Amino acid sequence: MTKNLFPLDSTKPFTEQAILGHNRWHGDIPPAVTVKPGDVFRADCREWFDGYIKNDDSAVDIASAPMSIVHALSGPFAIEGAEPGDLLIVDILDVGPIPSEEGPLAGQGWGYTGIFAKNNGGSFLVDQFPDAYKAVWDFEGGYATSRHVPEVRYAGITHPGLMGVAPSKDLLSTWNTREAALIATDPDRVPPLALPPEPQDAILGTLTGDDYDRVSKEGARTAPARENGGNQDIKNFTKGTRVFYPVYVKGANLSFGDLHFSQGDGEITFCGGIEMGGFLDLKVDLIKGGMDKYGVSENAIFQPGISGPQYSEWLAFSGTSVTLDGEQKYLDSDLAYQRACLHAIDYLTKFGYSPEQAYLLLGSAPIEGRLSGVVDIPNSCATVYLPTAMFEFDVTPSKNGLHAIDPGIGAPKADNP
Amino acid sequence: MTKNLFPLDSTKPFTEQAILGHNRWHGDIPPAVTVKPGDVFRADCREWFDGYIKNDDSAVDIASAPMSIVHALSGPFAIEGAEPGDLLIVDILDVGPIPSEEGPLAGQGWGYTGIFAKNNGGSFLVDQFPDAYKAVWDFEGGYATSRHVPEVRYAGITHPGLMGVAPSKDLLSTWNTREAALIATDPDRVPPLALPPEPQDAILGTLTGDDYDRVSKEGARTAPARENGGNQDIKNFTKGTRVFYPVYVKGANLSFGDLHFSQGDGEITFCGGIEMGGFLDLKVDLIKGGMDKYGVSENAIFQPGISGPQYSEWLAFSGTSVTLDGEQKYLDSDLAYQRACLHAIDYLTKFGYSPEQAYLLLGSAPIEGRLSGVVDIPNSCATVYLPTAMFEFDVTPSKNGLHAIDPGIGAPKADNP
Amino acid sequence: MTKNLFPLDSTKPFTEQAILGHNRWHGDIPPAVTVKPGDVFRADCREWFDGYIKNDDSAVDIASAPMSIVHALSGPFAIEGAEPGDLLIVDILDVGPIPSEEGPLAGQGWGYTGIFAKNNGGSFLVDQFPDAYKAVWDFEGGYATSRHVPEVRYAGITHPGLMGVAPSKDLLSTWNTREAALIATDPDRVPPLALPPEPQDAILGTLTGDDYDRVSKEGARTAPARENGGNQDIKNFTKGTRVFYPVYVKGANLSFGDLHFSQGDGEITFCGGIEMGGFLDLKVDLIKGGMDKYGVSENAIFQPGISGPQYSEWLAFSGTSVTLDGEQKYLDSDLAYQRACLHAIDYLTKFGYSPEQAYLLLGSAPIEGRLSGVVDIPNSCATVYLPTAMFEFDVTPSKNGLHAIDPGIGAPKADNP
Amino acid sequence: MTKNLFPLDSTKPFTEQAILGHNRWHGDIPPAVTVKPGDVFRADCREWFDGYIKNDDSAVDIASAPMSIVHALSGPFAIEGAEPGDLLIVDILDVGPIPSEEGPLAGQGWGYTGIFAKNNGGSFLVDQFPDAYKAVWDFEGGYATSRHVPEVRYAGITHPGLMGVAPSKDLLSTWNTREAALIATDPDRVPPLALPPEPQDAILGTLTGDDYDRVSKEGARTAPARENGGNQDIKNFTKGTRVFYPVYVKGANLSFGDLHFSQGDGEITFCGGIEMGGFLDLKVDLIKGGMDKYGVSENAIFQPGISGPQYSEWLAFSGTSVTLDGEQKYLDSDLAYQRACLHAIDYLTKFGYSPEQAYLLLGSAPIEGRLSGVVDIPNSCATVYLPTAMFEFDVTPSKNGLHAIDPGIGAPKADNP
Repeated sequence: MTKNLFPLDSTKPFTEQAILGHNRWHGDIPPAVTVKPGDVFRADCREWFDGYIKNDDSAVDIASAPMSIVHALSGPFAIEGAEPGDLLIVDILDVGPIPSEEGPLAGQGWGYTGIFAKNNGGSFLVDQFPDAYKAVWDFEGGYATSRHVPEVRYAGITHPGLMGVAPSKDLLSTWNTREAALIATDPDRVPPLALPPEPQDAILGTLTGDDYDRVSKEGARTAPARENGGNQDIKNFTKGTRVFYPVYVKGANLSFGDLHFSQGDGEITFCGGIEMGGFLDLKVDLIKGGMDKYGVSENAIFQPGISGPQYSEWLAFSGTSVTLDGEQKYLDSDLAYQRACLHAIDYLTKFGYSPEQAYLLLGSAPIEGRLSGVVDIPNSCATVYLPTAMFEFDVTPSKNGLHAIDPGIGAPKADNP
Repeated sequence: MTKNLFPLDSTKPFTEQAILGHNRWHGDIPPAVTVKPGDVFRADCREWFDGYIKNDDSAVDIASAPMSIVHALSGPFAIEGAEPGDLLIVDILDVGPIPSEEGPLAGQGWGYTGIFAKNNGGSFLVDQFPDAYKAVWDFEGGYATSRHVPEVRYAGITHPGLMGVAPSKDLLSTWNTREAALIATDPDRVPPLALPPEPQDAILGTLTGDDYDRVSKEGARTAPARENGGNQDIKNFTKGTRVFYPVYVKGANLSFGDLHFSQGDGEITFCGGIEMGGFLDLKVDLIKGGMDKYGVSENAIFQPGISGPQYSEWLAFSGTSVTLDGEQKYLDSDLAYQRACLHAIDYLTKFGYSPEQAYLLLGSAPIEGRLSGVVDIPNSCATVYLPTAMFEFDVTPSKNGLHAIDPGIGAPKADNP
Repeated sequence: MTKNLFPLDSTKPFTEQAILGHNRWHGDIPPAVTVKPGDVFRADCREWFDGYIKNDDSAVDIASAPMSIVHALSGPFAIEGAEPGDLLIVDILDVGPIPSEEGPLAGQGWGYTGIFAKNNGGSFLVDQFPDAYKAVWDFEGGYATSRHVPEVRYAGITHPGLMGVAPSKDLLSTWNTREAALIATDPDRVPPLALPPEPQDAILGTLTGDDYDRVSKEGARTAPARENGGNQDIKNFTKGTRVFYPVYVKGANLSFGDLHFSQGDGEITFCGGIEMGGFLDLKVDLIKGGMDKYGVSENAIFQPGISGPQYSEWLAFSGTSVTLDGEQKYLDSDLAYQRACLHAIDYLTKFGYSPEQAYLLLGSAPIEGRLSGVVDIPNSCATVYLPTAMFEFDVTPSKNGLHAIDPGIGAPKADNP
Repeated sequence: MTKNLFPLDSTKPFTEQAILGHNRWHGDIPPAVTVKPGDVFRADCREWFDGYIKNDDSAVDIASAPMSIVHALSGPFAIEGAEPGDLLIVDILDVGPIPSEEGPLAGQGWGYTGIFAKNNGGSFLVDQFPDAYKAVWDFEGGYATSRHVPEVRYAGITHPGLMGVAPSKDLLSTWNTREAALIATDPDRVPPLALPPEPQDAILGTLTGDDYDRVSKEGARTAPARENGGNQDIKNFTKGTRVFYPVYVKGANLSFGDLHFSQGDGEITFCGGIEMGGFLDLKVDLIKGGMDKYGVSENAIFQPGISGPQYSEWLAFSGTSVTLDGEQKYLDSDLAYQRACLHAIDYLTKFGYSPEQAYLLLGSAPIEGRLSGVVDIPNSCATVYLPTAMFEFDVTPSKNGLHAIDPGIGAPKADNP
């Protein structure tokens, strides 16, 4: 095991740790740790709601989860010698849940998936699923099972949902400007179009006083992916992945968090990955002048690891860009993917799952979501692939009778407050 | 080899064959062939432009390709006993190019990829690539190489781009109504939002006289995927795939065509797959009452084959839903995928490829395009994965010098007429 | 499709074809065809018993199959410029069964697996299976099913069992000397230790007269793999494979045959692959002086194709080098693999298969056979892996009840003559 | 993380731990731990030489390694309710190196591979490699690199080399009898044919006094795989694997150790895996009466995990059963595999590796070793597959020049004492 440069105590909240991370993006947040190119190190990560979500059979916590505190990020890590224009190489050497006994913090032998309610973030299928639901998953090695979603067991595709570098002052300004413009088009929308800077609950490392006040008002929220990487939720950032980030500030200032024990493409329930606290083992290095050398001015590029779970048999569903109400949209792959996912949910309910159980499964299992056709006007075609081996029964269509699952206690629901 | 129930003569156009197919969707097009559940058979397919595109170093044919004639489909195949409400099982037992000597028809040892010009269909990156380009690919077994895109060689992911069943009268009416409504929102758009029924060049099997006239005015164009399957361009319909279609008319009336020697997710150059004529070996069967039994009312579901090319090492690019001009869009995965593809193109040009060569490669090679993040407001995150083994040099970022390819004669261009 | 340089008529025996192949190895057999480095071509191949085995429910043909006529090889193909010391590159561009209607020759929509009787060749488990059995497999695309082995369906791993180059005079002499020495240790053994040159039924291309007589007495039998490649029965010589052969004579004189629709590692039933006639599409090239450059003086080296069937879920059995009678042998991986295979057979009989049905399945399906431990005195450990997806029921051990298959008509047996 | 039921202190030898394991097989060794069916737990494991081998540039320790102390096993674990005739299910939930800072014990960030000298165990290629050599491998996440074998980096295939259950009294007697009979055929052989019981250095858990004396004289050595599983060295026992063991004694008495960070098929250098101390997370369960139900009377059966490293591109070598001296042997797959491995070694030396470096690489990297042909008299054909991605240069044959590696300090050698 490599040296832990960002150790966290699972029994304490993010703000009471010996080392302080952050939950906003800003180039002025001071590095918490400084490392050298070639260094290998471990860092702990808090789960994205910092312990708010419980291992129980209620979804009240999902319904009331405080968005202003996300994401609890470990970092920034300054890399000596990194300068704007370089490419930062980050090797994800290992990633996993909290290596300790079972406990109350997600990552201690369990994790959770939530369908977020329309008035608290919403989700990819918010119109069909406006209420809050939760599923708790138990970990056995690399496998997940759930008392809330019976008769499935799958090898998780474990990865960090969020990793990125600090923005330059100009880049941050660009973000705030363009996102404010979007919000201004419909400022009262529920859920909102984007999240502006939010001083409340801002955690900014060791910053204090006026600096804290200023940065808390300027710092970008961590919800979206942006030029710096960020909350990309790429399920393929598995152990063994090499990521390349453009460097925008001296030292690069790498941060990360939002670990997922598993996640399907899209993280469609909003908190679709199986959320957990845990650890990352990383190695960092630099390609000096790499941004220009390779034409990478923004957004991470990466070589995925080769040790993710390997499935060979899939059941797949397709969708096109026509709304449930029958309206024809123009080449809308998001709509097409929604329709493909809804088809998968409809299918699974025939076996006895509730729609919410099926949805929670799609959000957390290592499903593949592909942009199959994006040019055949007016319909995009998107496809979603479910590994059949995760079902403990034959889930494929046949002339035989269907297996009827026992839905058990079902997925806990919370009414909207 | 199985019995060929739809043999085509590669030297003759679609309209002069002994057996007649069709290029519009309509339930009144009479079956060309009738088969029984359990039957195994072969059918030949014309390439989608029926031989218009040549194996040469000019893109004039791409620039002037006649959209009204597409897609030349083999069928309809009626399946005895099929009734609305059933699920039609189609096993893709084999798929490949024309099994004959080299010749002038795409599929005879070669195929093509075209970037379609803005005024003739356009493509996924039409704003960046408004002009017509072409690449010709030579086949060696399952591998493709091109004099127009040097220093790559890859195992193609061969599949039919288009397969589907006939719509019922009501379903056809639904299509025409909703697509007309979309067109009406911007009827003069270039490229258009959708394609209305077009009597010119309509091929409708053995229909004649008044029936021909009526159906030619009602028949839906074959460009988009719809409830009946259709032009889904799912690259994973490889040999060994089992597809399930909802049945809308007596006999199901299965048709197919638009074979691709290979294609990347999205078929991003519009005619991005390596287009070819060829053959399909199919087996058909029925699940009586399967639509209700499995909750499949529309859009194909499928189990992909396990003999597609298997790559383990990838170089991947990510993109988010911000336009090249810096405008923030809301959760737009198409835009995010465009940005990811543009990043890949930018990267490849550093090795000496022209942007068009890189684009033609992405459209035809077995790249993966995934909807990685679709809920993190306001940015979708899409990713595109290139198999590194297809490059005859080390294409990954490193501290070493870059390999410089010899771009050769380049990809032929045609000015817009 | 590439030009067929070695066309065969499926209705005629090997000796009545317009182009003549051979069934012995000798450097003096004249080339049947001459090609150039870089050439791409097709060649037809007869099944290894030249049509003797029938598609019926009897194993009499297996029991009496004439060993002296094997293997009917297509070739030799001389490659212009090839000289001793070069490496010959052979790309297996495609391989498949006879591309014609169903017919009586194996490869015309069907193939066969035989357990060979002790007095006619024997097999890997000859002591446990002394009698002749047969299974006929029907092809549907790349999949095989059998009326003689029910409730299995698998994607075959199609390949040529035999490919090689002509030996030099010295090399041939080495073979004959060393194999004669082995035979001399137990000349009356049944089955024999090796097969000496056999003039009867020798087919030697266009050789006639004294040359025929001489070569028929000197030519090595084609049963074993040797320095020149030969009957290696490597199941991984799938479509897309690149093989490198050392060149021993001017022109290299490449020959091939013994096509298998599928085969498990070891080809354990002796004629374990699903035997068939068919075709190969090949490309040849040279690395001048490659034998010394790469240290390859004998035995093929190769890069396997990436489009073989891809399974992810396996049920595996292990064995060690202790005989069924309880005798401890020293590091004998053949014995260990026999024991692993016997364990798999014992297991499958619990589901209702006869031991012979299980054995015929192991010989033909794409099972993996690995040398897991070869140094832990005194026991080797060998393992055999069965893809679970080939069974139409759950074949894995569990607390539930076992599925009972319907063994149907069983595998035909023939008493030893 | 699951509860650690067998914690070991990395700074202390096996005999000074708070919990005592064993290094002989005997049914009378008392359980160290008792668990219930369904329990999940962690256990630590010592490396097989209990810390004797150092992280240095000398092979003196390999040359003098004390065979009498191996293998230091964790256990026995009694499973409540297990009785002879049951099948014990063991899920390998996780396996990895020692989760602590770097240190002097193999498993603390590093591991080793040794070629064992002829007079101290020998190896698979003992005639070609009679002397002792060592390579130290550094771990970075799941990847291994070595200062002794430059320009390679690979994802290890991590697994326990040894796992098994206690033998019944009768079974133990059978072992001792048959192995003594083998030894008696050549009692002075170097290396020996088998290892008889050896009281010296016997560790037998909590046994003392007369019981210790008796069991130390009867207990079987742990070197070979046997009916009870044992030292199978199956590289595919990766994370996620489910193993089924026949139960021979009340409680089953499961033990394990000999963890490998990686290993090639065969573990050909004798200590070929990258040896390390580490941990296993396991879940145990029972199939009552499973031995008869599934016909499993001996040797483990298993379902391998799906998260091992996934390679798609390989360079493979074949060999046949002819000795280096030219003697023809009869269907000897061990010899064929030796020849295939020697071919691979010859090949790699052309790039600048010493033969020993190449050998150490083959023993530790995730190479595949297959029994390709076992029936084609008189030659077996065995094949060995090297993943090309582990080389940091193009290792495939081509017309271009060869890359010359820098062999660096080379692999340390020790003369035989």
